[in-house]
Amino acid sequence: MSAIRLSPFFSGVRCFACETPHDPRTLLTVCRQCGMPLRVDYDLASIRWKRSDVVGRVPTLWRYREVLPLIEGDETTLAEGYTPLLAVEPNVWVKDEARNPTGSFKARGMALAVSMAKHLGARALSAPSAGNAAGALAAYGARAGLPVTVAMPIDTPKPFFDECELYGATIHRVKGTIADAGKFLREHGPKDTFDASTLREPYRIEGKKTMAYELVEQFEGEVPDVILYPTGGGTGLIGMWKAFNEMAALGWIDQDRRPRFVSVQAAGCAPVVKAFDEGNEKTEPWPNAQTKAYGLRVPSPLGGFLCVRALRETGGTAIAIDEANIASATAELAAKSGIDVCPEGGAAWAALRQLRDRKFIGPSDRVVIFNTGTGLKYR
Amino acid sequence: MSAIRLSPFFSGVRCFACETPHDPRTLLTVCRQCGMPLRVDYDLASIRWKRSDVVGRVPTLWRYREVLPLIEGDETTLAEGYTPLLAVEPNVWVKDEARNPTGSFKARGMALAVSMAKHLGARALSAPSAGNAAGALAAYGARAGLPVTVAMPIDTPKPFFDECELYGATIHRVKGTIADAGKFLREHGPKDTFDASTLREPYRIEGKKTMAYELVEQFEGEVPDVILYPTGGGTGLIGMWKAFNEMAALGWIDQDRRPRFVSVQAAGCAPVVKAFDEGNEKTEPWPNAQTKAYGLRVPSPLGGFLCVRALRETGGTAIAIDEANIASATAELAAKSGIDVCPEGGAAWAALRQLRDRKFIGPSDRVVIFNTGTGLKYR
Ligand SMILES: Cc1ncc(COP(=O)(O)O)c(C=O)c1O
Ligand SMILES: Cc1ncc(COP(=O)(O)O)c(C=O)c1O
Ligand SMILES: [Zn+2]
Ligand SMILES: [Zn+2]
Repeated sequence: MSAIRLSPFFSGVRCFACETPHDPRTLLTVCRQCGMPLRVDYDLASIRWKRSDVVGRVPTLWRYREVLPLIEGDETTLAEGYTPLLAVEPNVWVKDEARNPTGSFKARGMALAVSMAKHLGARALSAPSAGNAAGALAAYGARAGLPVTVAMPIDTPKPFFDECELYGATIHRVKGTIADAGKFLREHGPKDTFDASTLREPYRIEGKKTMAYELVEQFEGEVPDVILYPTGGGTGLIGMWKAFNEMAALGWIDQDRRPRFVSVQAAGCAPVVKAFDEGNEKTEPWPNAQTKAYGLRVPSPLGGFLCVRALRETGGTAIAIDEANIASATAELAAKSGIDVCPEGGAAWAALRQLRDRKFIGPSDRVVIFNTGTGLKYR
Repeated sequence: MSAIRLSPFFSGVRCFACETPHDPRTLLTVCRQCGMPLRVDYDLASIRWKRSDVVGRVPTLWRYREVLPLIEGDETTLAEGYTPLLAVEPNVWVKDEARNPTGSFKARGMALAVSMAKHLGARALSAPSAGNAAGALAAYGARAGLPVTVAMPIDTPKPFFDECELYGATIHRVKGTIADAGKFLREHGPKDTFDASTLREPYRIEGKKTMAYELVEQFEGEVPDVILYPTGGGTGLIGMWKAFNEMAALGWIDQDRRPRFVSVQAAGCAPVVKAFDEGNEKTEPWPNAQTKAYGLRVPSPLGGFLCVRALRETGGTAIAIDEANIASATAELAAKSGIDVCPEGGAAWAALRQLRDRKFIGPSDRVVIFNTGTGLKYR
């Protein structure tokens, strides 16, 4: 037994696919048996924790301390999470993740990943990224005092690179997509570095799941009917699906009540939509992935099978939006709401229109759209 | 008596310079007697309001409802304010205003100005801006459903223009500084529009003053020793000075306890520093103003006399930072803290170093630096 302290409710780490347990007191990556993502478990039955208990706590994701792995004081934080939910139409709200540090929801995941990596002894950090994750990792690395290396597709807009440079990260520009950037780092990246890639370590999910806790707090214990989530790697979707299950176990929400999850993807890269539509359990690599909603340009998400499972379990669906509709919907939502919408958020807005036409969403459904980041870095 | 409802504690609007009262149920600009800025007053003695009463309220500046002019439900909001205070060194904190809607503290002022203008019947809005105010006005105008016209210096970085365009504002590019942009709007701008210029209407101060309420809440009832504030028009400085006086009257802080306010300006445009150093009561127009900390490029602030008064009353000072130091300090603070620092925030960080050398700031002084906006729009 090492002396590393963790939350008293933390009950272990197991594989999402094969349930093999892993030692949470070591730096973990993927399952050593099957290579699939790992899941963080809590002893939910022993927690005794009501939604009203969080009133008056810190206005960050750390207000949900009971379902996070670290004890107070051990976190690396820039005050992430607890973002506003803004009404934009009757029964439609935007969860504005642009209001996080570095302007995207990637801050949530990186806050947890970097906190745990540092706590468990990592000396350096790295990750491939479609853009926002790199900025977040660079910022949290700077805050933690750990060197960071990132790799991004060469055609990622300049502000994403500039931001990493500002925080002192080492930057690689790679031809292709985030998949190629990941390959590049594995082959040519630094060796003694902890890999903070999406779903290749267990804690980014824990950070992103807090979005669901916030929704339930913001809806005063109720659950929205539909969540429109721009899906790339799927961490946020998987995290929220896990969180709603946790909240059911905690008694925060009804046992059977879940939002219908919708994966919104770009027509130029829609592996989750394809797998869902074809009734497959797993996603297949998307050839020649292209979209200016860069966060959605993830051709072969490691957690694709978990996304598909979350959509099916909740009675949700998946939808692909073409580039022209992404652009026009982004502009429309911004001008209508005063929110700085990113293309990924715009895609979710376009999906609302289309799913209303298809009658998947009815007039009395309460809908949450995720604006996953600021539009500033795309301009 | 009109039917317009206002906060029950709102006790009137008077001139900061000559105390002439003005009717708060009409759209107000500057004092009709002397042309100076107007002040919003509250019946503080009748409020009976403790700091602990705000625990659990909305995580926005509207948690300080008792000292704001509007009743709940009458505001135009994007969930502004209640920004984090991040420790960056022993006894040094950054108040990270980049976390506001549109990425700057201008959101606070515009939330109040637009809310009141709409409530009082304005049909259109306009303002000259160094950059951030225009983006904020465009966003709040979009949210309020009111058309917006802005004018900015032609050399303002492109992201500031793009943002206004996104929100559907009409944009004018003007040669010179914000002073010239203001002149342009008065001469060639739309006529039936409400002028939301800094200190030319009374409510932007009310929005910005909430930064001081937040500081006292974040310091758990204590008051920092020094506040380093990048000063352009001075709205935030004047607002916080007013707020500390209000909090003393409310019993939130000791009668005589105030932070020493420091106006941080750019060497290329330092009218407040000059007036302070020369012992003058008023600022004089700064010829040929130049700085890439665009928010500080305000050559003749209407409220310059109030800034100088606030600095003197609190035992503060004023300091000018040159361009090279602004740039290096911005990079240093970002790489050290993980915060996305704007040049104006960088100037404040440089000021800390210099004021420590001068012994104006001692090692036991608790210091707050304002990072007034995101660095993203400057890159
Ligand atoms: C703005 C934005 N939206 C959505 C995504 C996709 O996120 P996830 O990995 O949670 O599916 C990303 C990922 O890069 C992103 O940057
Ligand atoms: C980033 C930034 N900092 C500081 C200022 C100056 O603000 P104030 O008018 O409150 O002095 C501005 C104003 O444009 C700004 O945009
Ligand atoms: Zn496994
Ligand atoms: Zn007057």
